Amino acid sequence: MPTGTTPDFSNVLATIDAQRDETLADLLRLIAQPSISAQDIGVRECAALELELLQKAGLEPRLLETSGHPMVYAEWLNVPGKPTVLFYGHYDVQPSDPLDLWYSPPFEPEIRDGRIYGRGVADNKAQHFSHIAAIRAWLTATGSLPVNVKVLLEGEEEVGSPHLDEAVAHYSDLLTADLVYTSDGPVTDVRYPEISFGVRGLLYIELRATGPNRDLHSGHWGGVSPNPIWTMVRALNTMLDDQNRILVDGFYDNVKEPTPGARAAMDALPFDVSEAIGRIGLTEMAPPADLPYADRIMAQPTLNIAGFTGGYGGPGSKTIIPSKATVKIDMRLVPDQHPDEIWEKVSVHIAKHAPDVEIVRLDGGMVPSYTPVEHPLAEVVRDAIEVGFGARPIDIPLVGGSLPDAAWTKTLGLPSFLVSYGDPAQANHSPNESYAVDRIRKGVVTSAALLDGLART
Amino acid sequence: MPTGTTPDFSNVLATIDAQRDETLADLLRLIAQPSISAQDIGVRECAALELELLQKAGLEPRLLETSGHPMVYAEWLNVPGKPTVLFYGHYDVQPSDPLDLWYSPPFEPEIRDGRIYGRGVADNKAQHFSHIAAIRAWLTATGSLPVNVKVLLEGEEEVGSPHLDEAVAHYSDLLTADLVYTSDGPVTDVRYPEISFGVRGLLYIELRATGPNRDLHSGHWGGVSPNPIWTMVRALNTMLDDQNRILVDGFYDNVKEPTPGARAAMDALPFDVSEAIGRIGLTEMAPPADLPYADRIMAQPTLNIAGFTGGYGGPGSKTIIPSKATVKIDMRLVPDQHPDEIWEKVSVHIAKHAPDVEIVRLDGGMVPSYTPVEHPLAEVVRDAIEVGFGARPIDIPLVGGSLPDAAWTKTLGLPSFLVSYGDPAQANHSPNESYAVDRIRKGVVTSAALLDGLART
Repeated sequence: MPTGTTPDFSNVLATIDAQRDETLADLLRLIAQPSISAQDIGVRECAALELELLQKAGLEPRLLETSGHPMVYAEWLNVPGKPTVLFYGHYDVQPSDPLDLWYSPPFEPEIRDGRIYGRGVADNKAQHFSHIAAIRAWLTATGSLPVNVKVLLEGEEEVGSPHLDEAVAHYSDLLTADLVYTSDGPVTDVRYPEISFGVRGLLYIELRATGPNRDLHSGHWGGVSPNPIWTMVRALNTMLDDQNRILVDGFYDNVKEPTPGARAAMDALPFDVSEAIGRIGLTEMAPPADLPYADRIMAQPTLNIAGFTGGYGGPGSKTIIPSKATVKIDMRLVPDQHPDEIWEKVSVHIAKHAPDVEIVRLDGGMVPSYTPVEHPLAEVVRDAIEVGFGARPIDIPLVGGSLPDAAWTKTLGLPSFLVSYGDPAQANHSPNESYAVDRIRKGVVTSAALLDGLART
Repeated sequence: MPTGTTPDFSNVLATIDAQRDETLADLLRLIAQPSISAQDIGVRECAALELELLQKAGLEPRLLETSGHPMVYAEWLNVPGKPTVLFYGHYDVQPSDPLDLWYSPPFEPEIRDGRIYGRGVADNKAQHFSHIAAIRAWLTATGSLPVNVKVLLEGEEEVGSPHLDEAVAHYSDLLTADLVYTSDGPVTDVRYPEISFGVRGLLYIELRATGPNRDLHSGHWGGVSPNPIWTMVRALNTMLDDQNRILVDGFYDNVKEPTPGARAAMDALPFDVSEAIGRIGLTEMAPPADLPYADRIMAQPTLNIAGFTGGYGGPGSKTIIPSKATVKIDMRLVPDQHPDEIWEKVSVHIAKHAPDVEIVRLDGGMVPSYTPVEHPLAEVVRDAIEVGFGARPIDIPLVGGSLPDAAWTKTLGLPSFLVSYGDPAQANHSPNESYAVDRIRKGVVTSAALLDGLART
């Protein structure tokens, strides 16, 4: 039986519409409550408001303390034998500066031209609140939920989720489920809803080459003193060939071929490459020439130089042999690479090919993560989106950027689906962040339909 | 007949000693007159004072206008058939900041512990004034000079002599001579006087690589967008091998082997390489390992990266593909390379091996210059130094840095000798620039002995 045609679900849809004004009012309250994790502004107050809204929805929420800001948690587990979905979201927001670029105050949400403006409205308050509103509608309409539900709202996503892995491991018994479902981020194109199935991982290192103990006159010392920039250029040149193939021994050992479903999804992406690279001023993608766009982002790791600093960089000429050169490198990793493994291999490479260069690991890195496009629950998710948005979603097997998705897929061993309820114009992290009002109902209906669909698996 | 034993020269020596207090007083006046060419402070006033001092010495000086600050010129050509020496010096000085590091005001010269402190005292006022004092002593003692003399004092040396080549070409009939003699710079070691016979030349370029039209998120675009830092690393890697051999076609075509005399002088240099590189924190010179110190500075050109700038250089991590990368390169050239020729060859190399990289020439460059160590007048200069300093000088066939010495050797086709009257402690261009009082007499005697010695060639 297709989703959305049961009498129960019809009642839920009617309730969603009946609660529409109150849902909007609650969301505006949530946006009005600052919760800037980076600056520790209003974070606990916002967690308290989330507790209130979850309670109003019919759950019995509580705080889960972490080494940082607390997580908000609620569960409803009254249909044993039915699947359990874990809704993940975050209640913290980015800092709101530069304030003078906002047309309305960031924590005084305002509706203009069909969009709600306010810091955090899209990232992530309207999106995760859609799940809470769907739960409320189900409980109001039927007195029950069709499946078991857990809600986990993090308070540190905007500072890089530094305690998420630790907390998920710590509360792993509590958080077990059949799938994790996240609504976050914008979509690429307003015409298509999207499901993302995974993310690239990340390793960030710094290379440091040292020459003389101070900058030297290149006339007096040129030819005598080694130059650390040349040392660095030679080291870098051992790491990547002119086709952007990474030359570190074993770097590709654990790269997993896309599954057939992922392959098909990659080949089917309705993405205009020429238009996209034209916007960044390019006419060609990086070598190799024959590699499709999707493979570059979803199947291949990268070794990117994010910065090279050495010697004089000002106007005109200065004739020195610099004392130091520093290079920052980020590596985007694909399933099933691991930042620890890659760190080891890159360290061995540098020790062997550039022993004079110091290598330092920055940050912990992120583990790449994926859920098979073929996973049976993916079809349930697609159906729910079709109910909510009226269109079949595009499958994105892997997102190029890095998120702590491995907390779900690796630490908990669960399938994880990232479904954005947002649109391309929402300006996450920027002034005048916004969210289209008509996407509130679409998101709430999608979440409600997901519960309905999961009940029939 | 060895220099310094003629009755005339004995009278000159006695006169130098008799004029000692007045020579010191005149020098202190000269130091007290600011002449900062970079800031146009007191330059013409200082030129006027130089005219006065040259007149007092017995000459009839005048200004030679240039496109910049004027040169001061005087000649005494009353012994036809005798050689003509052109004394070159500069009356302009470096800016004196940072002022708070001076123990006495830079333009209020003060004598402490046997040294005169003041901006420009060593670079170049006490040094070129030694020639003027020597001329004065000769004319006072004998009513004549033993050879013909020209004095040329530049007012723009401290801003890179931007109009010297042009002016020397313009006034080439006026400036013709048998040799050019310059006293400037410190010596390497207080134990040895030095004669320098040449300088390396210079070509300065900037390489610019461009990627996307703005910095990009390395997750969203990593693998898709080219990275200009990698483009630059590859371009640089085609230019120099790991033994520091320059790979640009024809780069070494015009490199002249040192003359036998230069070779012998290079091999005889009393220079403690381990001690010198130890002071800059190194235990080894740059490759190739078997290249002697003197060859690195005096026989080999260099291709030095003075700066590499691209992407993020601050603390911690930032994950971007930068939009631009810029590299500054200075090339030190040896006889008989020419910056125009090398510019052409490097441009061809970049066009061929890195066509995406833009190459720009900065500054005009400098032509390398040399006078053979074997030149017969060199022995006259050595003898004069022995009279003034009581020690045979060390021959430095080539100085590693770059000076507009080719104005004399190439434009005028003259032998050029650079003899420092200074010492290693004089702090040119730094606060508390100073000059040892006892070097005033040594310098004046050397200049006087040079005239005496030249008369007998």
